[in-house]
Amino acid sequence: MNQNAAPSHDPNGTLSYEQAGVNYDLIDPLKVTAQRAAAATAGHLAAHGFTEVAASRGESAYVVDVGPFYLASIVECLGTKTLVADEMAKLTGRSFYDGIAQDTIAMAINDLITVGATPLVVQAYWAAGGSDWFGDNQRAQALVAGWKKACEVCSVAWGGGETPALAGIVEEGRIDLAASCTGLINPKERLSVGDQLSAGDAIILLESSGIHANGLSLARKLVERLPQGYLTEIAPGVTYGEALLAPTVLYSPVTEALWKAGVAPRYCANITGHGWRKLLRHPSELTYRIHTVPPVTPVLKFIQEQAKQDDREAYSTLNMGAGFAIFVKPEDAERTVEIARVQGIAAWHAGTVEAGPKRLLIEPLGIEFGNDDLQLR
Amino acid sequence: MNQNAAPSHDPNGTLSYEQAGVNYDLIDPLKVTAQRAAAATAGHLAAHGFTEVAASRGESAYVVDVGPFYLASIVECLGTKTLVADEMAKLTGRSFYDGIAQDTIAMAINDLITVGATPLVVQAYWAAGGSDWFGDNQRAQALVAGWKKACEVCSVAWGGGETPALAGIVEEGRIDLAASCTGLINPKERLSVGDQLSAGDAIILLESSGIHANGLSLARKLVERLPQGYLTEIAPGVTYGEALLAPTVLYSPVTEALWKAGVAPRYCANITGHGWRKLLRHPSELTYRIHTVPPVTPVLKFIQEQAKQDDREAYSTLNMGAGFAIFVKPEDAERTVEIARVQGIAAWHAGTVEAGPKRLLIEPLGIEFGNDDLQLR
Repeated sequence: MNQNAAPSHDPNGTLSYEQAGVNYDLIDPLKVTAQRAAAATAGHLAAHGFTEVAASRGESAYVVDVGPFYLASIVECLGTKTLVADEMAKLTGRSFYDGIAQDTIAMAINDLITVGATPLVVQAYWAAGGSDWFGDNQRAQALVAGWKKACEVCSVAWGGGETPALAGIVEEGRIDLAASCTGLINPKERLSVGDQLSAGDAIILLESSGIHANGLSLARKLVERLPQGYLTEIAPGVTYGEALLAPTVLYSPVTEALWKAGVAPRYCANITGHGWRKLLRHPSELTYRIHTVPPVTPVLKFIQEQAKQDDREAYSTLNMGAGFAIFVKPEDAERTVEIARVQGIAAWHAGTVEAGPKRLLIEPLGIEFGNDDLQLR
Repeated sequence: MNQNAAPSHDPNGTLSYEQAGVNYDLIDPLKVTAQRAAAATAGHLAAHGFTEVAASRGESAYVVDVGPFYLASIVECLGTKTLVADEMAKLTGRSFYDGIAQDTIAMAINDLITVGATPLVVQAYWAAGGSDWFGDNQRAQALVAGWKKACEVCSVAWGGGETPALAGIVEEGRIDLAASCTGLINPKERLSVGDQLSAGDAIILLESSGIHANGLSLARKLVERLPQGYLTEIAPGVTYGEALLAPTVLYSPVTEALWKAGVAPRYCANITGHGWRKLLRHPSELTYRIHTVPPVTPVLKFIQEQAKQDDREAYSTLNMGAGFAIFVKPEDAERTVEIARVQGIAAWHAGTVEAGPKRLLIEPLGIEFGNDDLQLR
């Protein structure tokens, strides 16, 4: 298995994301086949009098035109962050599953809002390695409480969900967490699948709280290099494990507040796997010039240092302090920053969209990513 | 772990569902806590100008009133049926993942339609034990092809999905499959959350193709008792493994055809876990009297015999030949049976709803289930 591959010849050398266990070369061909098959099913909506918004194919959420408004839906996996929570529970006696619940919901919500949707309903998918998982009452209650609280932050209804016990599929003592989310784009002009994005638009970056839920394979692999493991202090009084478990920021309060203030994002990108390369998500030929780089969250700086990654590698994998990008008309830039801050989320007017070849220029760091660096469609 | 509990003192004695590995006593308290927390989030919809359909709490899908129509959504897990497919692939060299895909979609679709919804969008959740899972091209292509075909049968659009590699959470070489589904109840009078169900209504049962995707823990446990295991012939030319892997029937073509023919179900029950006890799902005090029992699918008869279950135990766990129940006005009963048959699905006018205490009477078998036999809310 690839996830057991040796980190490198030098045990303290550079550690890349692929070496840490995720081999996109194996997953991506299946993804492409699945995406093609999925696209071929769009015509079925006609039988019900509806049509898909074709531009949403390849975006973070799927959108259907149902007449009076658009319907957006998604299912998203948390990933392996629970493995860190499980280790930290052993080391500290504390359950971190309240934060883990927020992470899981954030995976779905933060993707759904990129297309301009207001999230309405979240469904829980909690697949445990056996019935026993649910018998740990403290942990189970933390998961429920955190899930409910994240729904409150995002003003969504928790519709229900699944709590299967999957011995033989999910490992004993572990849980596979995911969330599905359904929302509406209402009124329809809120749709932001990118047709409006154009040269001159401003790039606003919203702060992350830490690693969020992408790059955890790398973060976990690094623990092997740390004599004190997850209990390594990365700042006074803050351990590596605690810092990794900072819950993912929920960005829907910002997108909702923007709409209420009359600011319509021209496009959004959720910065998850592939790090800042996600800023290249939009299909058009456009150049993204970053002039202001947000401060790097301490845990991400620590990971970069320990993994001996240069900036290019780090920004191509991790969010590096920016968890979400909103593209707005230049005259809306400062207001967008202000509105985010009112919601308690730091934001920066970080750059500009320009005419030109498809590339991302992070000028303060001298990094350039081209079209070949991100293949999502 | 409970799933490793000894089957019983007598290795060839009766095997119950609980002995086969699923301990609802551990899961159900968490479910109740989660359901209460979820119900408390309903008010958030008001911020968006919407309201939940409170009667859908406790039903198989969650319903929100969004004005011109109702929105229904759900996420559903396949369960452990892939473990049978994986064994059979080793024994026969064939991939059964096309059928497995249909099973997964059926879990979501067959629940969503119980509330009167037309399924519109399905999202795929394919969480593998490592990137390598996706490297088996034959299996991956079968999964994609089966998923696409099931979408065709149900006239739904495949919106997208997740294909994470979760080494450390999902077991190596395994995959955790789930589907989320979003649909509309349109026009709104199609809503069937049970307020219309009343004494005199007819109970229509639709055939199952076999075990579907519930009771697999028991079915797998039985293999230990069979000298030829999954290759045991249960009928001429049909092995136990193949019979278990018959894909779950997709029932949405029936509910859609009913609506087009002017038949509005008063209530529906998807017969999954808890077997025929699911006929007691409706919250009202009503008696369900079954006068006609559909023929038992051969693989279910085989399981019942091998597990030495009496009829009461078997009907309380397995679908026993009936995968879906539709409750209609008595004058619609025969037409409902006909419409299902036109869709290629055998159906029986099996019984009647009566005033009386909450119980299910399966008269030909002398079985009675009471309210205490099903606690889902």
